[in-house]
Amino acid sequence: PHWRGVLIRPGQDPDSPLDRSEHYRIRSVRMNIADAIFESQSGFSTTGATVIADLEDPISLPHCVLFWRSSTHFLGGLGIIVLFVVILGQGSAGKALMRNEIPGPSKEGSHSRMQHTAWMFAGLYCGLNVILTALLWVLGMNFFDAICHAFGTLATGGFSTYNASLGHFYQVDHTSGAWIEYVVIVFMVLAGSNFTLLYFLMIGQAYRLIGDIEWRYYMGIIVGVTICVVCFGMVYDDFIIDPNTSFFTEAQLALRNGLFQVVSIITTTGYGTHDFDKWNSFGRGVLFLLMFVGGCAGSTGGGLKVIRHILFHKILFLQLEKSYHPSVVRPLRLGGKPVDDPDLQTNILIYFSLILVLFVFGWLSIVTLEPDATWGTTDEHIEHKLIDSATAVAATLNNVGPGLGIIGATQNYANFSWWTKLLFTALMMIGRLEIFAVLVLLMPRFWRSR
Amino acid sequence: PHWRGVLIRPGQDPDSPLDRSEHYRIRSVRMNIADAIFESQSGFSTTGATVIADLEDPISLPHCVLFWRSSTHFLGGLGIIVLFVVILGQGSAGKALMRNEIPGPSKEGSHSRMQHTAWMFAGLYCGLNVILTALLWVLGMNFFDAICHAFGTLATGGFSTYNASLGHFYQVDHTSGAWIEYVVIVFMVLAGSNFTLLYFLMIGQAYRLIGDIEWRYYMGIIVGVTICVVCFGMVYDDFIIDPNTSFFTEAQLALRNGLFQVVSIITTTGYGTHDFDKWNSFGRGVLFLLMFVGGCAGSTGGGLKVIRHILFHKILFLQLEKSYHPSVVRPLRLGGKPVDDPDLQTNILIYFSLILVLFVFGWLSIVTLEPDATWGTTDEHIEHKLIDSATAVAATLNNVGPGLGIIGATQNYANFSWWTKLLFTALMMIGRLEIFAVLVLLMPRFWRSR
Ligand SMILES: [K+]
Ligand SMILES: [K+]
Repeated sequence: PHWRGVLIRPGQDPDSPLDRSEHYRIRSVRMNIADAIFESQSGFSTTGATVIADLEDPISLPHCVLFWRSSTHFLGGLGIIVLFVVILGQGSAGKALMRNEIPGPSKEGSHSRMQHTAWMFAGLYCGLNVILTALLWVLGMNFFDAICHAFGTLATGGFSTYNASLGHFYQVDHTSGAWIEYVVIVFMVLAGSNFTLLYFLMIGQAYRLIGDIEWRYYMGIIVGVTICVVCFGMVYDDFIIDPNTSFFTEAQLALRNGLFQVVSIITTTGYGTHDFDKWNSFGRGVLFLLMFVGGCAGSTGGGLKVIRHILFHKILFLQLEKSYHPSVVRPLRLGGKPVDDPDLQTNILIYFSLILVLFVFGWLSIVTLEPDATWGTTDEHIEHKLIDSATAVAATLNNVGPGLGIIGATQNYANFSWWTKLLFTALMMIGRLEIFAVLVLLMPRFWRSR
Repeated sequence: PHWRGVLIRPGQDPDSPLDRSEHYRIRSVRMNIADAIFESQSGFSTTGATVIADLEDPISLPHCVLFWRSSTHFLGGLGIIVLFVVILGQGSAGKALMRNEIPGPSKEGSHSRMQHTAWMFAGLYCGLNVILTALLWVLGMNFFDAICHAFGTLATGGFSTYNASLGHFYQVDHTSGAWIEYVVIVFMVLAGSNFTLLYFLMIGQAYRLIGDIEWRYYMGIIVGVTICVVCFGMVYDDFIIDPNTSFFTEAQLALRNGLFQVVSIITTTGYGTHDFDKWNSFGRGVLFLLMFVGGCAGSTGGGLKVIRHILFHKILFLQLEKSYHPSVVRPLRLGGKPVDDPDLQTNILIYFSLILVLFVFGWLSIVTLEPDATWGTTDEHIEHKLIDSATAVAATLNNVGPGLGIIGATQNYANFSWWTKLLFTALMMIGRLEIFAVLVLLMPRFWRSR
């Protein structure tokens, strides 16, 4: 009976966002148009923020709706990987970000080569989805959950089919649940890696993945932050409820949950296994900052991308050095090779500035427009508005999903007013399309350099 | 008897910060070395953040200590106005920021001209202090309070001699208190203006002040933000306690208190007449952002300065336009004239980036290092740590003084641990010296361009 509501609209144009959102406007799922647009954008932009408070209600959310929700992640991830890796990898600015020459028949025309690359990345993406689905199925998920969570992982989306997100499986069975989490960690790390490098890994050239400067920083940040989060978390007893837990058990819990959350946030997947909103201030603060890091360029991850942070800090350092020693002119180097694009420095600084302006504008808008009542009635809770709004803007602009406080790991976006939801929708779109990438597409110079 | 503690150390070197802080290390004022360094730096950097919880205790804080505290503001403000307006106004980067040629005997050598300008600005600064002292004395303050508050106003410092800050005088006498606030508003606006323009105003060329692009934006921001703050504040009943207050009285209260707080924060003075921490979220959010605006270049105000924000937004706009129309090359213009310094664009972007990095680094350090106990014992209050720390970093880095929450308008910095106080001390120094200005002083190119 629930299927009918979904299937009565078979012949619509799936490209228009308004029409896409119509898929959710069935009678059984009670949603207004703002919720539907939000959920739709959240899926296609692989943000994974949801306005659905109860995902486990079979009456209001039949399996077909949950599957469609996860499918939007798959399609969004596929679109990004093909669009950006292929199209942006060709331009001069794109090449500087991607660094690696995209493999393919280089002697042929650029059109044929692009087509080849597009098919290859699409194949790689689909293949990883199939492998993860199989692994999750083997580890005890049913086929439906396995495919939905594979879609959510490889697209760095984060839609789950359970209210407790991926943590549900650990609650059901500690052994298989822990294995599921470790497997998902590995695939989140892969989804946040440059797909060109994953291609090299596939054809047996692992040294190109391991030798890549961006990938090394990416792994370095994950390892470094996880160590800090685990140590601070164990000092503050964030991971255990029972104080009689043995040190070994606590360390195991801390390592798995800490690593999972760090990987989930830096790759902007947003799956949760643990309520990190209850962590100590360092843990929450660092997760908030990780939202702005994001995955590698050419991955399905959101955020500013690791390579932009590397370049940003190199530029700052070079400029400071230049102030002290103006006679020493050093070029910007990346992995030993000088970066010859003269516009790159300005582009990186402008990109950071635009994100800053968007973040500040989004934050002030939500702080102003969203009623205090969303946070509750006590003075203490209204105080949280400033920080919760900041994390909500960060979580949508970087396509992460969960934030802190009322949109924390165990919460959702249902309580916001419709205009705030539309603002989040805009931020998700701007974040996903990386603003500048949109501008690059419109630049005649970009098309000439192909 | 209280004087003795201060006067036993007459022959020390006042230039070393460690020795300066010794002034506070008298037996009657119970302060450890971190508190003394903090209070000293806060005075000289014209931040006005205090670690003294009770300013009105005559036993622990004799008048001479209060006067010395305010004198550090006077000296700090004098130092900044002479150092930056004169020295930086000569370099090419400094000229772009100052725009106006500094008046003086231009035919003579640069050294003589610099000396002339330095004396002129020092005279103007002292003259304004004298005028404000006289006005405040006439309006009912005693001479001691008048001179201390004049020092605090013209230096955009913010140290008061009362726990209720400048609001004390309104509490004592509504009529004279209101007049005092209006007079201080005018002088805060002057202190946040470019001193070159104030010189032109003094010699009767008011059109040069009114025609200045930075001053127009500065006044525009004050007027615009005040209107928003007053309207939102009246809607949310932020300014009145008694609900039977007439509309006219409420509007008057809202206008005076709203204008005072906006001017106090944008000029980075930090005087308070009203607990803006009880305002609605828009009001608190916008005051937080105003901390980063600051006064005009060449004023005693801190923050990033209005001119840098104008240039920042012009650069962003030009770059976006360039992306869409790469064939149209437009130069950066300021007040109709093209800015010909090719490094200016990079300098502005780098300056914003450095402030961002310092802000993020300072925030994460305080969130990590400061114990939760500073915020109290309840979960709700610990949640405030993230936002309070952000405002504390903004308030010290921009030399404002008060922030939100535990360092709000009616609070102080006494409860922080000593390492956090030392971090704040470093941020105050970095903020006051504008980082880059320090670097500029070390640049051989800068000295050549003189
Ligand atoms: K996501
Ligand atoms: K101040």
